[in-house]
Amino acid sequence: MRPNFAPDIAIAERFLADLAARTYDGVGVTREAYGLGERIAHDVFRSYAESVGLTLVSDHVGNLYATLPGTDRSLPAIVIGSHLDSVPSGGNYDGAAGVAAGLAVVSGFVAAGFSPARDITVMAIRAEEAGAWFPTSYLGSRGALGLLRPEELDIRRRDSGRTLAEHMAEEGFDPASVRDGQAFLARDRVAAFVELHIEQGPVLEAEGVPVGIVTGIPGSRRLRSARVLGRYDHSGATPRAYRADAAIALAELAHRLDLAWERMDAEGKELVCTFCVLATAPEAGFTKIAGEARFELDVRSIELAHCDALFAELHDLVADIAARRKVRFDLGPETGSRPAMMDPTIRAGLAHAAERLGIPHRAMPSGGGHDAAAFAAAGIPAGMLFVRNQNGSHNPDEAMRMEDFAHACAVLQAWLAEAAA
Amino acid sequence: MRPNFAPDIAIAERFLADLAARTYDGVGVTREAYGLGERIAHDVFRSYAESVGLTLVSDHVGNLYATLPGTDRSLPAIVIGSHLDSVPSGGNYDGAAGVAAGLAVVSGFVAAGFSPARDITVMAIRAEEAGAWFPTSYLGSRGALGLLRPEELDIRRRDSGRTLAEHMAEEGFDPASVRDGQAFLARDRVAAFVELHIEQGPVLEAEGVPVGIVTGIPGSRRLRSARVLGRYDHSGATPRAYRADAAIALAELAHRLDLAWERMDAEGKELVCTFCVLATAPEAGFTKIAGEARFELDVRSIELAHCDALFAELHDLVADIAARRKVRFDLGPETGSRPAMMDPTIRAGLAHAAERLGIPHRAMPSGGGHDAAAFAAAGIPAGMLFVRNQNGSHNPDEAMRMEDFAHACAVLQAWLAEAAA
Repeated sequence: MRPNFAPDIAIAERFLADLAARTYDGVGVTREAYGLGERIAHDVFRSYAESVGLTLVSDHVGNLYATLPGTDRSLPAIVIGSHLDSVPSGGNYDGAAGVAAGLAVVSGFVAAGFSPARDITVMAIRAEEAGAWFPTSYLGSRGALGLLRPEELDIRRRDSGRTLAEHMAEEGFDPASVRDGQAFLARDRVAAFVELHIEQGPVLEAEGVPVGIVTGIPGSRRLRSARVLGRYDHSGATPRAYRADAAIALAELAHRLDLAWERMDAEGKELVCTFCVLATAPEAGFTKIAGEARFELDVRSIELAHCDALFAELHDLVADIAARRKVRFDLGPETGSRPAMMDPTIRAGLAHAAERLGIPHRAMPSGGGHDAAAFAAAGIPAGMLFVRNQNGSHNPDEAMRMEDFAHACAVLQAWLAEAAA
Repeated sequence: MRPNFAPDIAIAERFLADLAARTYDGVGVTREAYGLGERIAHDVFRSYAESVGLTLVSDHVGNLYATLPGTDRSLPAIVIGSHLDSVPSGGNYDGAAGVAAGLAVVSGFVAAGFSPARDITVMAIRAEEAGAWFPTSYLGSRGALGLLRPEELDIRRRDSGRTLAEHMAEEGFDPASVRDGQAFLARDRVAAFVELHIEQGPVLEAEGVPVGIVTGIPGSRRLRSARVLGRYDHSGATPRAYRADAAIALAELAHRLDLAWERMDAEGKELVCTFCVLATAPEAGFTKIAGEARFELDVRSIELAHCDALFAELHDLVADIAARRKVRFDLGPETGSRPAMMDPTIRAGLAHAAERLGIPHRAMPSGGGHDAAAFAAAGIPAGMLFVRNQNGSHNPDEAMRMEDFAHACAVLQAWLAEAAA
């Protein structure tokens, strides 16, 4: 008979409150990747994991693992967790909620005397916030999996200007092992990775659903330094026929690509298309026709074919507008990523657990990227639970109701009790 | 029998060459309004006018007048000329060409022994480049006409941060007389003002016509600090239905207003519509939906009804887009000006002169504002001649062929010989 376990929400609340207090910067929380804030967060996690009696080990790139040993240690482990770094002046839950959930679930098992067959490891991951610190994705999780490329050690942190290798060494870790391609997590020693995370978007809140079960993490096609080149002219003295107006060419491109997305959206095709930045050059000014403008475009979908369809439309529009408006488009380098699908068995297991517990849930794609994508890319079955949250993410107003968090922890724990049994 | 006169193009060429040499800044010419460059230009003009034997006088705000006296000095004078200030690192012809034309025409009369009935005065005007120095229009010409408002003395020069009154006093002129509303040019003592100026736009060059006869100087309706306010959200995690995207709302507004202008243009309605600046806020960045954007809009026409029609369209679009895209538009203060029509008799006289000389010409609206607008606003019959030019204006590449300039001078001189006879 199964012990009568429940997640230990109290330990998660204390952990999150300590984290917030110790990494508050006056506006929000700041936990810089491979820096002071992240180090403090890992120290806090270590003390909480020790208080539960978990076995702690850290790897060569600084991820921290707290393990509840299984009765058969020859079985591959289940790893749960998320990252502990944050954006500058961000919110307390983005990342940390997933580590707090790991503590809550495992502490609940310990209190109930539940011994899983396989190891359950709570992983505190380093350096996930690529936009804020080192501009490359999933540093910590890819490091654990042996998937960092040596040249990534030379990437510089945006705030300090110093390299990943320098910051890693300063925090006491081993950049040389990255150059050697060392992995800490062997694929065949991890049965599954499941990450709980705040949603970061408005869907669960708007639809009144506390828990999301992620179908996949989108792939993307991106232009981060695209330009439109026209000609500066006098705004009064230049009739319509003589203009090469970069501003209006960009406006037409953005508006018409948005109309194309609107049509795909109406057909039920899941994708997003965002002109994150759209701006005339600094030389622009009153009484001048803009001779140059730039834009940054982010197109994402869990179906890469949708990204491709919108990019085909983009290229058609660019050709049409360039010819008609006498401007030139320089789209710059394109970047992107492939979608990472979550494991169908894990998704079904999580949904089954939610149903047994009577917790409302829905399947949904992730919007942002998450460490779970790195595990999936490494061939490890991965899953994600989203918790309904308020006020978006990456800002100090980011919020999450503890009852929603408790629902998601209960789903995670119920699934674990089956999967690790 | 009329003397066999011709414009003295040689003196104009020497004058322009001296100006360029003495106000070159390493990139272009810089003749700051009420500053060193403009003072040098006025000194150069003074020496050339003296060499022709003209009578020199300067007014309370620093405009300089060089007069060929008429045989009947009780008659109202004809004033010709333009401004001698330039934008920073601008071209040598914007403004100065009109003063050089005055020298050429009058020197030609003197050489031919032509004595007009009325005074012909070449006026070197101060401080016309409002965008570059003091942000208010036609300082010099309005000062001569007694139309400056006392509070304009407190306007600060963009580069120095010091007031017009300070700069005026430093150059030896009399700001107190402005406070007293003093005029130097009485309306009933000026029969006409005619200004020769480079076109500043591409029309004459494109159409292969050397001389333009200006129909009017456009009025305008302008938004110089308009904003679109939406909400910052995660570009991956926020589906279409949940967005309040300021960037795409602005793109739609700009594109659809441009389509409205395209329709009016196709109907033969003369106006221009320019989004001079169009930009997401500095807080915008990759993986964010833009929560704020700003724009600067310049709509001009010699028929204010066309500006009004486009602004009516603007307000309709703003209401539609705000409701549909869940953003708010803050259009900020609107500024503008009324059109100034050129005098029909002067226009006909200039056209008649060009025809007699066999010089190709066309009627056209001015694009930019010019001192002639201040004279027209004061009730003085005004006219303008445009000279075909290359590479626009307000930049060091601005150009003008001397044979085109000579054609325009010949038209001006032929008209003057009739009008001042």
